[in-house]
Amino acid sequence: MATWTLARRAERMNPSIIREILKVTEQPGVLSLAGGLPSPDSFPVQALRDATARVLRDTPREALQYAASEGFGPLREWVAAHLVDQGMKVSSTQVLITTGSQQGLDLVGKILCDAGSRVLVETPTYLGALQAFSAFEPEIVAVASDDEGPLPAALDETMRGARFMYVLPNYQNPSGHCYSEARREALVERARALDIGLVEDNPYGDLWFDTPPPKALAGRNPSGVLYLGSFSKVLAPGLRLGYVVAPEPLYPKLLQAKQAADLHTPGFNQRIVHEVIRDGFLATHVPQIRARYKAQRDAMATALTRHMPAGCTWNTPHGGMFFWVRLPKGLDAIALLPKAVMRGVAFVPGSAFYAQAPEANTMRLSFVTVTPAEIDVAISKLADVVREAIAQLHPAVETIGR
Amino acid sequence: MATWTLARRAERMNPSIIREILKVTEQPGVLSLAGGLPSPDSFPVQALRDATARVLRDTPREALQYAASEGFGPLREWVAAHLVDQGMKVSSTQVLITTGSQQGLDLVGKILCDAGSRVLVETPTYLGALQAFSAFEPEIVAVASDDEGPLPAALDETMRGARFMYVLPNYQNPSGHCYSEARREALVERARALDIGLVEDNPYGDLWFDTPPPKALAGRNPSGVLYLGSFSKVLAPGLRLGYVVAPEPLYPKLLQAKQAADLHTPGFNQRIVHEVIRDGFLATHVPQIRARYKAQRDAMATALTRHMPAGCTWNTPHGGMFFWVRLPKGLDAIALLPKAVMRGVAFVPGSAFYAQAPEANTMRLSFVTVTPAEIDVAISKLADVVREAIAQLHPAVETIGR
Repeated sequence: MATWTLARRAERMNPSIIREILKVTEQPGVLSLAGGLPSPDSFPVQALRDATARVLRDTPREALQYAASEGFGPLREWVAAHLVDQGMKVSSTQVLITTGSQQGLDLVGKILCDAGSRVLVETPTYLGALQAFSAFEPEIVAVASDDEGPLPAALDETMRGARFMYVLPNYQNPSGHCYSEARREALVERARALDIGLVEDNPYGDLWFDTPPPKALAGRNPSGVLYLGSFSKVLAPGLRLGYVVAPEPLYPKLLQAKQAADLHTPGFNQRIVHEVIRDGFLATHVPQIRARYKAQRDAMATALTRHMPAGCTWNTPHGGMFFWVRLPKGLDAIALLPKAVMRGVAFVPGSAFYAQAPEANTMRLSFVTVTPAEIDVAISKLADVVREAIAQLHPAVETIGR
Repeated sequence: MATWTLARRAERMNPSIIREILKVTEQPGVLSLAGGLPSPDSFPVQALRDATARVLRDTPREALQYAASEGFGPLREWVAAHLVDQGMKVSSTQVLITTGSQQGLDLVGKILCDAGSRVLVETPTYLGALQAFSAFEPEIVAVASDDEGPLPAALDETMRGARFMYVLPNYQNPSGHCYSEARREALVERARALDIGLVEDNPYGDLWFDTPPPKALAGRNPSGVLYLGSFSKVLAPGLRLGYVVAPEPLYPKLLQAKQAADLHTPGFNQRIVHEVIRDGFLATHVPQIRARYKAQRDAMATALTRHMPAGCTWNTPHGGMFFWVRLPKGLDAIALLPKAVMRGVAFVPGSAFYAQAPEANTMRLSFVTVTPAEIDVAISKLADVVREAIAQLHPAVETIGR
């Protein structure tokens, strides 16, 4: 490429496997369990129509003009007040409105990562965080984790000298895990003792099915935890609204990084969302999403039990959007994907979610954009593909089984 | 700051002088010539109301859902078609929709700058570009420039080995300059000969007052120029919509950087803007902005001639939003600012717009958010402040003068 010399970080960029997969699954007739998309049936279209009309009637000049990089004041105040439910006591001056919480990850990487800085993540972890942090060339280290979160024994050996640890404690993308109370306490305690900051990402915490998750990490050590939230899963992702709650000393640096990144998040969108939620809308809206997703979670749990062959295991998530399925050792979910798509079902292979040592026999299944009836069909098709792959892996065993 | 260790780039960040100034000028009673804000009188509120209602009626689920990182297809096609007027022939597949053109600058820095990479800018240059690029720690070198753009003689000595040169050829922020046809040809020719990419930023090109500016640089060497555009100045900045047109080999890298930065620009906003502009709205709307700003430009030119003391010089811009005033040597515009604000007028000191060797005796005056009558009052007050500063600089001369 004459003329243009790329930065080292750009030379290393590779196309996202999820992006390429999403393109394939746009074919008609494919039941997609691949997307990380909320159900569009949950979008509060009428409330957004009304709010937009009010904003463009009452404050059009303000909503359409350049605005403060910090975000719209009343929305920042709403966020600060709302976080009391998570056990957090924060000032609105600590709240920075971002263009989706993905931007929060980019800004965190920008102010905290030098090339070679050690950054810790869960095993597996959110792919978008790996992409955001990677731009700043850290050494990303995967901390051994189980269904309850990072293993306490794994923390001491890996945490020393790290810039921060990135965690998604509530109904994680991709694994669906939710940290236990004990694990939260242990993590915050170890981080405090070792003087390592935590970056807590919580896009799914409101989407619990039976009981709320334990309180946020950020309330347990406010100066040591940077918290990320989002309106994408409780209202609509196409508005691109998230927020960062930063310990005071980090705020000015995040703010300057934000200003350099896009000046500010659209004031139009911020005012519309504030107009929707200011009078308690979410208190009636979010329970509807919970009920919808719970029914779909139940359908997928039933379908997995009914259809999947022996040797497959999975969690049953208590909130969020994802099942995490482990296939028998030796199977490669990436190799299964084209076969599954040919049968009319798509998923995301788990490998993409590992910072190190990917486990090829894992897959992420979303249950929120398909109906319970479609879930049964999709899992049945997927089970057929897995069963055939197992047969090819152990033809002798399969023959004996017959 | 225990716990948190900052990245080197964050340690170096300093509060923006423009931000701090904008806070001061929010006091009631201050006539602000400081803002880089378009006039809210120019916002097409009714057209946006109608378009928003249609989008939320016809395609709410699509507008509110996650969307492609590249941007909304029909908007990308509109951009590609619209750029024919600038002498550019591009495919919509080269168009990446960004969260304002500020984000385009961030993405360009991300994919093209390593720490220590040499990046060239004009003298003076757009402050937001300096902020965006600085995050990636390049060595930013100022190329000597005059009212017509970078001096051809200055190019050879500085361009070799640079990653790219960033230029704003049409009615630059802050200087108001517009490159001549000859200077455009010379710059593109030298860049091509030296194999240096150009990053062409064009937020103001549509805001010409008498005749359109010469054609874009990007049409003269498509593979060697990356082009940035914006809807902020022709529609409304609060929607945060801009775009990058990239040479084919750069596009996949920009796209991945975009995905890591905020997944995508709000689809809601993209669809609304497309709905407003799809049937030729800008062909009648933009001439109204031009006429408005031209009258304000005329008012400021008249006021400067009428009020400013001898020894002050300025350009008379043929488009855009800014006058660039040079005070007598020895005056420091930063020192004048608090005095001016006490008199009820604000401006931006020019020093912030220099990558190297700031000229303290410069100031940027915006004429678009104040009426012609207010402009006369504001310039009169500003002239008083300047006159007093000159008197303090040369008390003897001033006494003789009396």
